[in-house]
Amino acid sequence: MAGNKSTAESYADYKARMQKIADVKYAIAVLGWDQETYLPEKGAAFRGQQITTLSGIAHELFTSADLGTTLQALHQNNELSPVERKNVELSLEDFEKNNKYPAAFVAALSDATNECYHAWIKARKANDYQLFAPALSKMVELKREEASLLGFTGHPYNALLNEYEKGMTTGQLDTIFQEVKSSLSPLLAAIEKQPPVDKSFLHSHYDKNVQWSYGIELLKQMGYDMQAGRQDLSEHPFTTSFNPLDVRVTTRVDENDFGNMTWSCIHEGGHALYEQGLPTDQYGLPCGEATSLGIHESQSRLWENNVGRSLNFWQFRYPELQNTFPGNLRTVSLHDFYKAINKVQPSLIRTEADELTYHFHIMIRYEIEKGLMDGSIDVKELKDIWNKYYQEYLHVKVPDDVHGILQDIHWSHGSFGYFPTYSLGSFYAAQFFAAAQKQVPGLDESIATGDYQPLLNWLRTNIHPYGRFYTSNELCERVTGKPLEFSAFMEYANKKYSGIYGL
Amino acid sequence: MAGNKSTAESYADYKARMQKIADVKYAIAVLGWDQETYLPEKGAAFRGQQITTLSGIAHELFTSADLGTTLQALHQNNELSPVERKNVELSLEDFEKNNKYPAAFVAALSDATNECYHAWIKARKANDYQLFAPALSKMVELKREEASLLGFTGHPYNALLNEYEKGMTTGQLDTIFQEVKSSLSPLLAAIEKQPPVDKSFLHSHYDKNVQWSYGIELLKQMGYDMQAGRQDLSEHPFTTSFNPLDVRVTTRVDENDFGNMTWSCIHEGGHALYEQGLPTDQYGLPCGEATSLGIHESQSRLWENNVGRSLNFWQFRYPELQNTFPGNLRTVSLHDFYKAINKVQPSLIRTEADELTYHFHIMIRYEIEKGLMDGSIDVKELKDIWNKYYQEYLHVKVPDDVHGILQDIHWSHGSFGYFPTYSLGSFYAAQFFAAAQKQVPGLDESIATGDYQPLLNWLRTNIHPYGRFYTSNELCERVTGKPLEFSAFMEYANKKYSGIYGL
Repeated sequence: MAGNKSTAESYADYKARMQKIADVKYAIAVLGWDQETYLPEKGAAFRGQQITTLSGIAHELFTSADLGTTLQALHQNNELSPVERKNVELSLEDFEKNNKYPAAFVAALSDATNECYHAWIKARKANDYQLFAPALSKMVELKREEASLLGFTGHPYNALLNEYEKGMTTGQLDTIFQEVKSSLSPLLAAIEKQPPVDKSFLHSHYDKNVQWSYGIELLKQMGYDMQAGRQDLSEHPFTTSFNPLDVRVTTRVDENDFGNMTWSCIHEGGHALYEQGLPTDQYGLPCGEATSLGIHESQSRLWENNVGRSLNFWQFRYPELQNTFPGNLRTVSLHDFYKAINKVQPSLIRTEADELTYHFHIMIRYEIEKGLMDGSIDVKELKDIWNKYYQEYLHVKVPDDVHGILQDIHWSHGSFGYFPTYSLGSFYAAQFFAAAQKQVPGLDESIATGDYQPLLNWLRTNIHPYGRFYTSNELCERVTGKPLEFSAFMEYANKKYSGIYGL
Repeated sequence: MAGNKSTAESYADYKARMQKIADVKYAIAVLGWDQETYLPEKGAAFRGQQITTLSGIAHELFTSADLGTTLQALHQNNELSPVERKNVELSLEDFEKNNKYPAAFVAALSDATNECYHAWIKARKANDYQLFAPALSKMVELKREEASLLGFTGHPYNALLNEYEKGMTTGQLDTIFQEVKSSLSPLLAAIEKQPPVDKSFLHSHYDKNVQWSYGIELLKQMGYDMQAGRQDLSEHPFTTSFNPLDVRVTTRVDENDFGNMTWSCIHEGGHALYEQGLPTDQYGLPCGEATSLGIHESQSRLWENNVGRSLNFWQFRYPELQNTFPGNLRTVSLHDFYKAINKVQPSLIRTEADELTYHFHIMIRYEIEKGLMDGSIDVKELKDIWNKYYQEYLHVKVPDDVHGILQDIHWSHGSFGYFPTYSLGSFYAAQFFAAAQKQVPGLDESIATGDYQPLLNWLRTNIHPYGRFYTSNELCERVTGKPLEFSAFMEYANKKYSGIYGL
């Protein structure tokens, strides 16, 4: 029991502390958003310092002994509601995890990240992996140390996975990626035999301002609340949230690539709808936060792929799109458009991959990360392994390091365990979407008439309001009746791509 | 002495603490800038909470006993450089001042401000001063209490003036406003006898986008560094700084009022040039902060009025302006344009006043504030006094409260002592500009050829780099050889307006 404080008082104290931390963290997010959108170039150094200071303050607040005492006391308390109990449980878990990191380790990791990031930049410039390898080695060592500090059952990589996708294990991922290999490979092989799809018209000249307005229109159509958000330009599209009533997206507009803006908008829109759907009364508390990276990604992928690259969606939207860009699309049929936006083509760069070959990119990184963590792969041999895997799974020859092992920034940030969430997002999305199709009568028809409200309502009922109340696996089981399975994605892929490629 | 720490170590500790506070304060400024420019409307409440939290953190950091100890120790230290000594001295002064406020008083003031602000909003809507009076009474009581807490010599209003313009006294202001009455009134009377100036062409339709680009061009011409700043739109133009390398301005564009955007840009540009000229190596320390509100305003007014409404300035810029807005200005001569932008016309609303009658608006508020502080004026009779003063000094009849006593937001914020800095800004500006004209050979000629670098160099040498190293009075004396005197403004006004009105 919380000393002589009532349960309500103790919980209020806990909540106030958490909200104070959230205020600081969201302030950091505002500073970060501004950094990517409007910051004048000379302001960068001081801005970095300001963000570092606020991060330090947030960390101090979250590791304070007083918060620990409050959490411990509440954890013993039997009078909490289920949501309150879950919040306390998760906050205590986060708090204890934080305290597993000795200060020396945090400092070492921060130094290594800095070094590793700069080494990656340098190596990319020189197109030479060897300039990155020594710093990466140090990073891998520290990540292995982190796994031990955090503790794990089974594979050490589980400890890192847990940071991004709570409860996810190499066991579950091995099964999934085994199926990726065994079921997705034959589909890809069949597609490769078909005549290539023409998507050149997506790369004719599309006016910047018209693209911009079209993207905003797409966001509004999806149900993104423009009074609780906005879109801006940035080099890399992202979604950021300062609370569920201020969730912002950014996009990039490439005049020679219509798809770039369009599916960025829809993708970020999916992330943003999730954030706008989190419960405002849980601001600053775990139940007010996104479930996991995988679930977050499921929301963006569901809108981007299952909806935004579907025939139903464009059946309604395509005439309007043709009117918006008559010079580009007047002579292109819906059928050809639909094929073009779903063109499958093995390639070198993950971020440019289609929705099928994409998962081989992730699988390769997953295998490598796992091997680095259990010591079965050495940083020195990474480049060869990378190139061999790309040849084996995607049948492409890696011409150089920039188009190969140096393409992603994640490892230089020390983000090991992050990549799998991208694939998990697609797989959750397929499973969720299939469930929605079953549970919402006429869902496909509504999409085919430009009405996305039934889908959004379903997401707003089944996914968004729970925050971290359920883990990803619990949520998936609750919503779909089953744990995460690759089969939903495979069914979706088989049906869609058999149609497109006439298999 | 600072215990067993070296002077360098102690000073570094002090500096680190101050910079941490600055980081938090500047983060608040970023959140505030975003609030005025890009914040989606539903995000306002959480944003308010985030700003409150950060303000609390900044306050906590600045009132910490450790900082006090560090400051006390450094204050005894004889090994500091003059700038270091001044920083410590001012920080200690700020620290001690902060500690003069009991927590209960701070809470009462915060409540009263909130109440007063909402009462003002309500009263404005109802156009009824009586709805504002009770809350204003409470505010005045608290401000009188604040004056006692802070302590003062002479008039209690001096304590509040000191907050905005260190060292300024009712004695100095009484002398100045006496001269405003005795010297400015006859000039105004003479102007009123002349035929009215036509400025209707400034209110024809000016395209929004062209205005926007023209404003940006003006800022660049002035020397505003666009790599260390940017301009955005907001309802009320303002300048905000997150460090000297990120100083932002906002403007407002009214398609039916060309002057609105133009002199807003120049005015805010003047503020921004000052902030961009503060020493970056003094970030977070008093010598890295603006001298005072009056000096800040002197920089904006100097550019807005002494430069931006001068014949020299437009002699060069006007042909270009005519080309930019040919439909509006082709048939308007430079002479008529110059007269129009300097039209003198007594009016009801301070923010719309010309550069001469403006000071009567300030004088009226000054007289009222002084009377409220020493008890010679009662809040109940304020409306009558206001209306009487406007009749007496500006010869205008106040038709209602919205166009009279309820027009300004300042009192509702508890900002007593702030208004005089507006007039002080003009008077410092005139005195500085006259000094620059004497000290920089060919200054007027350079302005007449569109080269503002000599003026900016002079400001960057004589005003900007000192921060709070000198008080306003010290700075004024150092730069102009004399304390602040109204005569420089009067000389400037007599010369300029005699010319314009052919007196």
